[in-house]
Amino acid sequence: MPSALIFIADGTEEMEFTITYDTLVRAGVHCQSAFVPADGSKTVNPPVAKGSRGIGIMPDVFFEPASCGPDKFDLLVVPGGAKGAETISKSAAVQELVRKYIDADKLVGMICAGSLAALTSKLPKQPLTSHPSVKAELDSDYEYSESSVVVSGKLVTSRGPGTAFPFALTLVELLLGKEKREEVRGPMIFPANTPF
Amino acid sequence: MPSALIFIADGTEEMEFTITYDTLVRAGVHCQSAFVPADGSKTVNPPVAKGSRGIGIMPDVFFEPASCGPDKFDLLVVPGGAKGAETISKSAAVQELVRKYIDADKLVGMICAGSLAALTSKLPKQPLTSHPSVKAELDSDYEYSESSVVVSGKLVTSRGPGTAFPFALTLVELLLGKEKREEVRGPMIFPANTPF
Repeated sequence: MPSALIFIADGTEEMEFTITYDTLVRAGVHCQSAFVPADGSKTVNPPVAKGSRGIGIMPDVFFEPASCGPDKFDLLVVPGGAKGAETISKSAAVQELVRKYIDADKLVGMICAGSLAALTSKLPKQPLTSHPSVKAELDSDYEYSESSVVVSGKLVTSRGPGTAFPFALTLVELLLGKEKREEVRGPMIFPANTPF
Repeated sequence: MPSALIFIADGTEEMEFTITYDTLVRAGVHCQSAFVPADGSKTVNPPVAKGSRGIGIMPDVFFEPASCGPDKFDLLVVPGGAKGAETISKSAAVQELVRKYIDADKLVGMICAGSLAALTSKLPKQPLTSHPSVKAELDSDYEYSESSVVVSGKLVTSRGPGTAFPFALTLVELLLGKEKREEVRGPMIFPANTPF
């Protein structure tokens, strides 16, 4: 079964994190969340990440770059939430991993302000999207799109909590196929006419 | 500002919990999550709730019925997740609070298997919905509906992770009005044509 490493930090948008992790687990993907401490912050034990709206989430592990390479996981995910995305996207170790995953032809997902990691990781000009609040930081360096989910080679980007389900379902489809996407989607009971 | 008490237990569906809590916080609702231990389970410190798909969530408080009455909060929420909903809906203290909230004309929200709490709390026959997996347990005692969100007086029920956003936005509207619902919905960036 495929596996995913999902970053989390203080200030991560907890809906984007949870929808992605949970949906991938429903598809049978082994998920591991890794806590990225803010620059200069003291680590705590246990390291509960405080989400952007105050929910405390217990990461599976501290982020240890050496055990997170593209030989270990099939997908890397950077969730949004302004403060969390800033912490994660400014981490030099995260940036290096993003480049390594793309170079190794492994998937990298970024949602909301998490798309800033494309810029900080110096990924080349290509189509992407993000939360509108960080569009101005991205649209001169990328082919900025307002689609809910943008797949550009191995880079998959999305917009916000409202696009987190189609983002997660797209990742399921890319890892395991369209049939698995439908199998996971059914029991979630989306309203009729939901466009994803 | 209104306030909400959101139950959580081991096995709670973490998307339903997180989407409801986070969306309410975005609307300015003060949210407190309360951990309901499974019958006979040992309490741990800190009491991390293990969600239905393995995400560890740190509840704000242990559930102490005496400090959770309808004089303290405007809304009570029972999330789904088979095991979590069973633990919460079988708690006599939860059942008593559900009746007290309804009697005090305060809102009670139930989603997915969480709707079983209507039955265990002996709420009278009325329209409701739930996850299809528990429909058989509810449809002889209630006017079972397959709508995504059912508002019956102060009881608001919904179906699953895929209806958690319209469930949460309906609670926002009932607490704070239609304008606040739209104000919260905008920055979430739902795809065009999303039917809620």
